[in-house]
Amino acid sequence: MSAQKSKAVFLKNYPKGMPEAGDFDTREIELAAPGEGEMLLRTVWMSVDPYMRGRMRPEVKSYIPPFSLDAPLEGGAVSEVVESNVAGFAPGDYVVDFSGGWKEYYLSKGERTQKVDPNLAPLSAYLGVLGMPGMTAWAGVTQILKPKEGETMFVSGAAGAVGSVVCQLGKAKGCRVIASAGSKAKCDWLEKEAGVDVALNYKDYKDARELTKALAAAAPKGVDCYFENVGGMHLEAALNCIGFGGRIALCGMIAVYNEQEPVPGPPNLVNLIGRGVMARGFIVSEFMDKAMEFAAEVAPLLAQGKIKFQESVYDGLDKAPDAFIGLFKGENMGKAVIRVGPDRLS
Amino acid sequence: MSAQKSKAVFLKNYPKGMPEAGDFDTREIELAAPGEGEMLLRTVWMSVDPYMRGRMRPEVKSYIPPFSLDAPLEGGAVSEVVESNVAGFAPGDYVVDFSGGWKEYYLSKGERTQKVDPNLAPLSAYLGVLGMPGMTAWAGVTQILKPKEGETMFVSGAAGAVGSVVCQLGKAKGCRVIASAGSKAKCDWLEKEAGVDVALNYKDYKDARELTKALAAAAPKGVDCYFENVGGMHLEAALNCIGFGGRIALCGMIAVYNEQEPVPGPPNLVNLIGRGVMARGFIVSEFMDKAMEFAAEVAPLLAQGKIKFQESVYDGLDKAPDAFIGLFKGENMGKAVIRVGPDRLS
Repeated sequence: MSAQKSKAVFLKNYPKGMPEAGDFDTREIELAAPGEGEMLLRTVWMSVDPYMRGRMRPEVKSYIPPFSLDAPLEGGAVSEVVESNVAGFAPGDYVVDFSGGWKEYYLSKGERTQKVDPNLAPLSAYLGVLGMPGMTAWAGVTQILKPKEGETMFVSGAAGAVGSVVCQLGKAKGCRVIASAGSKAKCDWLEKEAGVDVALNYKDYKDARELTKALAAAAPKGVDCYFENVGGMHLEAALNCIGFGGRIALCGMIAVYNEQEPVPGPPNLVNLIGRGVMARGFIVSEFMDKAMEFAAEVAPLLAQGKIKFQESVYDGLDKAPDAFIGLFKGENMGKAVIRVGPDRLS
Repeated sequence: MSAQKSKAVFLKNYPKGMPEAGDFDTREIELAAPGEGEMLLRTVWMSVDPYMRGRMRPEVKSYIPPFSLDAPLEGGAVSEVVESNVAGFAPGDYVVDFSGGWKEYYLSKGERTQKVDPNLAPLSAYLGVLGMPGMTAWAGVTQILKPKEGETMFVSGAAGAVGSVVCQLGKAKGCRVIASAGSKAKCDWLEKEAGVDVALNYKDYKDARELTKALAAAAPKGVDCYFENVGGMHLEAALNCIGFGGRIALCGMIAVYNEQEPVPGPPNLVNLIGRGVMARGFIVSEFMDKAMEFAAEVAPLLAQGKIKFQESVYDGLDKAPDAFIGLFKGENMGKAVIRVGPDRLS
């Protein structure tokens, strides 16, 4: 096969504050034919996730290197194998690949690549509930929070790709679940579809004091488990309501990712001491050796309809920057995915 | 025996900000003769500890109730049994009692009372290295931080009753130990007597940025374990230097105990996420079932001279408020203890 042309999204410059369309640049690139040990993949679905904002801050030391300005962006994608010189992968196979995304075609060595079954679930689900966000939710709940039946769980960013799975795992484990999200539509979905006990629209509360009052009313016995996606006033309210022996899984702090000046932490960290609370930050990659356990627990819940999910679908690679920016504006319901190409080329 | 008169220190009002001598009031009280199941104790040594400041904030929900303004203050004490109607306690026995302190004589039901051996260690040590502060240090190190040989440990408030034991347990476990304290004399003691690798006088650093630089230089491989006694810029610097998989034992935040306005938390809590850090607040009472394990580990280290300790001794019950206020002004070296009476009445 001759060289393959592909549209690809580059970062033009590192965003200052909230990312804007002008920070991105779509270019055409040309890929060499796959060499020995390489395969050519065609992106079907790509993912945008909040952690990518961290890769746009070259000054911050993190667990993954920052994006380069001289190469296409990358991320999780469900892709079709077009041509393969990698053992175990054949044309027509579908894979999840973490060096994919943000381009129509790319070369992969198959190193962080897993085959997925298109008959088990819609392909895009491998970027959400059956993918990295679902695994993140599962790891935070089962490896960190370890909720017991009858306990109260509070989840911020609850309508998102991670939070929505956290809520439903909490319910499956017999918890009272209090969810926070940023619109009435999200709260309705959480209460009616995801089955949480109370959904709080945080935009109804102007500060941590008001949110604390609402949370305390919804969690009269205190919060045993808090799953943190947001930071800011959510963390402060959770620390006000956390009970003795409480656990906090720190997954994200989307409220502060776009701030250019340091944002002070909550003034009530001292509650961690008096109440004997454990707070644990984590990145899903730490728990990757438990991926089979995750699939074994979540896939049946999904099949039984005990875990529901929503997607915000963006059509076409050109929409990827909008989808990404939407993460920080609360514009997406559930998992944001971009359909880059059809399931099969006709 | 007839009714026993006793001087006792009362709280006149809840302190606003830094406690002052005028917040306390010494009165004479009269104790009834001990009834069935009670004993009369005479205080020999009493303890002042930072946690007591929390009991002077009636508006804050905590693990122990606030002090009442209508009764003597209370705390840990080493006392002599004068008269006993409690099985297992006889006149002349020495005990550690947590409803003691702040008075010359008091009645006890023996419920939180343990006999101590005056031949094993000086009596005051049961308020320090062999008492609640030593147990706190041991619990934070062995039950939360779980340091491995060759790891780096950072300890704030390192010259205090808890911190100094933490440092020496860290050394006994083969760690590189970086200590922070508030004077040259304290740093000298830490380096020369307690054997820490580097002692930082935090007063040499005007903000978290400067302290971070000094800590990073002292901990070139990053901080694996952080024992928190102070809060404020210490926590921020520790979060800047903490390594992947780091652990934080949150024991105290003395820097904020006397603030009347909420003090914002550090702006870099997000580091907990990217670096997979566990932070655990605790109160020693949670680990009381391990008191024998503590004694079995620490008493031999003390006997072998591998744990050294210092005391700031105040003479006379009238000095108790000064000793307490000194905790927050950094005036004490090691454990602050008040000699309320002689070992034996002659």
